[in-house]
Amino acid sequence: MKRVFFTGLLAAIVGFIHLNAAMGERGTRARTVPPTLAERLGYSREAKLLIVHADDLGMAHSVNAASIKALEGGLVSSGSIMVPCPWFTEIAEYARSHPEADLGLHLTLTSEWNNYRWGPVLSKDRVPSLLDPKGYLFPTEAEAAAKISVAEAEAEIRAQISRARAFGIQFTHLDSHMGTLYQSKALVETLLRAARDNKVPVRVSKEWFASAEYLPSLLGPNAVVLDHIVSIDPEVTPENWVKYYTEAIKGLEPGVNELIVHIAYDDAEMRAMTLNHPDWGSAWRQRDFEFVTSELFKRALQDNNVKLVTWREIGKLQ
Amino acid sequence: MKRVFFTGLLAAIVGFIHLNAAMGERGTRARTVPPTLAERLGYSREAKLLIVHADDLGMAHSVNAASIKALEGGLVSSGSIMVPCPWFTEIAEYARSHPEADLGLHLTLTSEWNNYRWGPVLSKDRVPSLLDPKGYLFPTEAEAAAKISVAEAEAEIRAQISRARAFGIQFTHLDSHMGTLYQSKALVETLLRAARDNKVPVRVSKEWFASAEYLPSLLGPNAVVLDHIVSIDPEVTPENWVKYYTEAIKGLEPGVNELIVHIAYDDAEMRAMTLNHPDWGSAWRQRDFEFVTSELFKRALQDNNVKLVTWREIGKLQ
Repeated sequence: MKRVFFTGLLAAIVGFIHLNAAMGERGTRARTVPPTLAERLGYSREAKLLIVHADDLGMAHSVNAASIKALEGGLVSSGSIMVPCPWFTEIAEYARSHPEADLGLHLTLTSEWNNYRWGPVLSKDRVPSLLDPKGYLFPTEAEAAAKISVAEAEAEIRAQISRARAFGIQFTHLDSHMGTLYQSKALVETLLRAARDNKVPVRVSKEWFASAEYLPSLLGPNAVVLDHIVSIDPEVTPENWVKYYTEAIKGLEPGVNELIVHIAYDDAEMRAMTLNHPDWGSAWRQRDFEFVTSELFKRALQDNNVKLVTWREIGKLQ
Repeated sequence: MKRVFFTGLLAAIVGFIHLNAAMGERGTRARTVPPTLAERLGYSREAKLLIVHADDLGMAHSVNAASIKALEGGLVSSGSIMVPCPWFTEIAEYARSHPEADLGLHLTLTSEWNNYRWGPVLSKDRVPSLLDPKGYLFPTEAEAAAKISVAEAEAEIRAQISRARAFGIQFTHLDSHMGTLYQSKALVETLLRAARDNKVPVRVSKEWFASAEYLPSLLGPNAVVLDHIVSIDPEVTPENWVKYYTEAIKGLEPGVNELIVHIAYDDAEMRAMTLNHPDWGSAWRQRDFEFVTSELFKRALQDNNVKLVTWREIGKLQ
């Protein structure tokens, strides 16, 4: 459940600071263009790299079970964990016993389902602005962003990070459930500060820079920034699911891309959890699971010469 | 997950206060023996009455779904709801939209599973003694009873009651998850005070009076007290499940009895939740579900002339 809003850091640096730099024909001139993220990772400038990322781990058992299967199947490279959710302890135990898994934290300031809710990690008295009238986190990112105190949001995400560490999770990156922490400059700052203090990269795409002009300067010159994020949305009908993904893979440009998926089994738990909420719902997540564990996906990656990378590799650059 | 410890109020009153009262042959003398609970409910002294009670509603979706089916099937007469649990909102919505259902509150001071935990309703800062080192409620009733402050326990159960009301639940009775609130006189007092203030009956059996001699005086003369509670335990093997229950029904004495069951489907959610915990585990709950929805159970009740009653009927006596 992502909303992406923005556009381009390294692009901006490349474009503006190095406007006069050489891009001579056939590389005969001395090269002064800074390396791309792909190059920093040891690939060529033309390489098509992809993180296949499962969001929402810890949200439900069904999400955990299907995501672990997809991670271990080898085609989902990464995932991120929701610390305040009921099934956090299950995925934390997995992360602790599988330190090789590329797992980050899906920092959570919303609780979006009708019949299955969660609250903050911090004591409720300390973060009253994060709570809806029923005492859970807000159901939408817009409501959350409109009502939460930035200081309380920062305290809560730092508590989520501390709790993850206390449970033995060596997280490789940070991102934000439903994009709540990308809703304002002040919230982005809290996210970037937390990432910097914990020495991990954070999900940011060049594509967001157009709508969030403050991003490049907040990120600074050494930040790692994705070139492109692919995330299916409710406009895609179930019949077009596979077509959407295969075309997205075919259309990938060189650079570091992220494919964000939401994986679970379409089972009783998931159907009850996502009741009256087909978007990012139970059948949606089963379709995502089926695609990322399919031979078709494997072949599409091979046919288009797409290499999987992880947030752990990216984190080593910082 | 009940432990029962005690023994007999109305019995005590009958036995001691009315020691000299008439029980003349063939009822020729004027009757001064106070009515039994069964008689107060409008049944004869010889009637075998039974509440078939599903515990743990709200704990998981699987519990909710199977318990609702068993309640609506007609042979489970009552259930009680755990307010701090992740699936509370689902069962609260059911209770709100089914005010005729006989639902109480299963006041909760423990969180017993390995991979699926919950905390208190109150802000954690206000009830630090209720929390284990990970910030959840304690896993066992013994640890909880040993470590919790009675004042904090009382504040928390009152918060659970308020939250249930705020969600529109018109609860008919109170009981205690894993019997934590029956672990000491001080805890029983908090439970009885909460019941009295909310004008609802509470699960107490005459059988507990022997090991909790303080109970009759705490309850007072007008309290309603069950005659006998049946609750299967881990000593019964799966093969003997049906035999245990059918014999228990055959062996019921006249009076008001309660059969406590723990109902869920043996599905992925439940198996993960009860991992490494066969007692009151996933298969256990499926067996309970199957028995209470079986023709065999229906016939056993008929053959032994057992009538189902509810906590709502009992509550009207107070």
